[in-house]
Amino acid sequence: MSERNLKIKLQCPMPKLDFDVITLGHGSGGLLTNKLLDSGVFHLFDNDYLRERHDGAVLKLDSQTAFTTDSFVISPIFFPDSNIGELAVNGTVNDLAMCGAIPQYLSLSFIIEEGLKMNEFWKILIGIKSAADKTNVKIVTGDTKVVEKGKGDKIFINTSGVGKVHEHAQISINNVKAGDKIIVSDTIATHGVAIMSVREGLEFETAVKSDTRGLNHVVSKLLDEFGKDIHLLKDPTRGGIATVLNEIARDRNHGVKISQKQIPIQNEVNALCEILGLDPLYVANEGVFIAVVDSRISEKFVKKLKSMDYGKNASIIGEITESHPRQVVLTSSISGKRIVNMLAGEQLPRIC
Amino acid sequence: MSERNLKIKLQCPMPKLDFDVITLGHGSGGLLTNKLLDSGVFHLFDNDYLRERHDGAVLKLDSQTAFTTDSFVISPIFFPDSNIGELAVNGTVNDLAMCGAIPQYLSLSFIIEEGLKMNEFWKILIGIKSAADKTNVKIVTGDTKVVEKGKGDKIFINTSGVGKVHEHAQISINNVKAGDKIIVSDTIATHGVAIMSVREGLEFETAVKSDTRGLNHVVSKLLDEFGKDIHLLKDPTRGGIATVLNEIARDRNHGVKISQKQIPIQNEVNALCEILGLDPLYVANEGVFIAVVDSRISEKFVKKLKSMDYGKNASIIGEITESHPRQVVLTSSISGKRIVNMLAGEQLPRIC
Repeated sequence: MSERNLKIKLQCPMPKLDFDVITLGHGSGGLLTNKLLDSGVFHLFDNDYLRERHDGAVLKLDSQTAFTTDSFVISPIFFPDSNIGELAVNGTVNDLAMCGAIPQYLSLSFIIEEGLKMNEFWKILIGIKSAADKTNVKIVTGDTKVVEKGKGDKIFINTSGVGKVHEHAQISINNVKAGDKIIVSDTIATHGVAIMSVREGLEFETAVKSDTRGLNHVVSKLLDEFGKDIHLLKDPTRGGIATVLNEIARDRNHGVKISQKQIPIQNEVNALCEILGLDPLYVANEGVFIAVVDSRISEKFVKKLKSMDYGKNASIIGEITESHPRQVVLTSSISGKRIVNMLAGEQLPRIC
Repeated sequence: MSERNLKIKLQCPMPKLDFDVITLGHGSGGLLTNKLLDSGVFHLFDNDYLRERHDGAVLKLDSQTAFTTDSFVISPIFFPDSNIGELAVNGTVNDLAMCGAIPQYLSLSFIIEEGLKMNEFWKILIGIKSAADKTNVKIVTGDTKVVEKGKGDKIFINTSGVGKVHEHAQISINNVKAGDKIIVSDTIATHGVAIMSVREGLEFETAVKSDTRGLNHVVSKLLDEFGKDIHLLKDPTRGGIATVLNEIARDRNHGVKISQKQIPIQNEVNALCEILGLDPLYVANEGVFIAVVDSRISEKFVKKLKSMDYGKNASIIGEITESHPRQVVLTSSISGKRIVNMLAGEQLPRIC
């Protein structure tokens, strides 16, 4: 089992309110919106930027800054040990980390379906706060919209983020070259399997939990040590590692070869994939990254990862090739070879 | 009638596709998502940042940069001469302008309900492209999610944006002081009335169109000339000018007095407000801003505005007072006085 993400248990009881569900009026931009925000949101995320209460935040940024966005529509919004709020912070933090950046500031935008219970919203806010604290990012600007019952699904969250590019980072698809090693940072497919287990009512029979977590601290230390020898970082969320590897092969016009035996996966996740009829290569991850690194440093890179949280099961799973450009070829555990295509159609809708 | 926003008619026919509606698979992150994006999105918004096809964009930013976010859930998604895509760009551009910033880069995130017609999506993309071109911003990163039929409503769009703060801008609620003049840049309430007209089936009997437009070029010229004498800028979207003025009074702990006679409104909009039972002070605007400026420059400021597009009907509507702190007091056209509260409840759901 990979090391579990230790959750901060925040001691933040929900404030007393004169409403217990969110209504259309809370999205009006008027009195009720202000009431909703004042009822804890501003207090929970308090900082100098939010205190200005303007339409945006004015930040001191570095000349090399990464900028990214993600909307989260996961269903269910609560899953063992975590929720859509924590996921929404970690997801955008990780996208910034994949750009070689140190995440600094996040925006937070809610689309709430009328009728969401205030105590559910509060739990989500606590998830956001907890993830923001652990990843060391500030929520500096936001937006709240409410849509009628049946025109949304409980809550959708968009987070966008900015972060300073690490001084030694030179992450670009153009730096990837034949011979580079492909490393996966930890066991794969846990997020997708955890969510599917909840959907299928199996969550009480399994200990598999989403691997949602912020990868920025780990990535930052790797960049400190390996700098420009890290050619590319990608987090294999929707579509799994198969899709990310296909994107690399396509965008670089090179081949990718991987070995099934080297791909780390928890036994329980593997078993659940079989029960649920899922190919783990296509299952979403939320706390894992793929690194393409110079072959000279690959062993040291894995050793370093194994010494850190979130990297105990790191493994070199393959390499970039000049042969079979734009194709991902897998050597199976019984030494057969097959082409791994990009995810076609939809395996697990609304997994993030 | 205020000057109409001249729409750029882009000559971008929709590419030929082997699908005509968007399905769950288009949100999978896999092959279909790539197909959807390659089918014109990347081509339409093409730039160096998007071409990297990474999880985020690395930008050269100024040390003083504004950052903002907004989700757009307007219904209907198409309205006379415009659509949710154009609105989503202009809305975030305007939020940046209100921070005294020159908008530069936008993120673009879609939450699409399964079944959206591809030709509708294309029209929205054209709206985005047209607004981005006019306001001189680049779309540099994005995300696409698809939810099941009945779990969304056609399309929701989040745009977040960053922009360089104008070198002469010193916009802050803390700079607002008693005696400052309050200026509205153009006729109010047109956006809300235009949308309500469509909802009520009145759109063929009226020429009122949404005032959605990017205010950044106008604001930038005003900052060139008046710099730190512009104390605050706010765009009165949801909740209308009444809500924005109440926020100013509350956040600055001062009073606001305004004169009904000085508030510019098109006759037709006023008449439709009466028919629809709306108070124009609470009706959403999308192409208007409120400026709080030093009284010394207020006349010159209005004169300058009147000389520019989008400011022909600019007017000084009132001032900041030491008396009646946290209250907005209106002198009516028949010289009565009344307190104008913040919008309570919901007047026009999903107006932006």
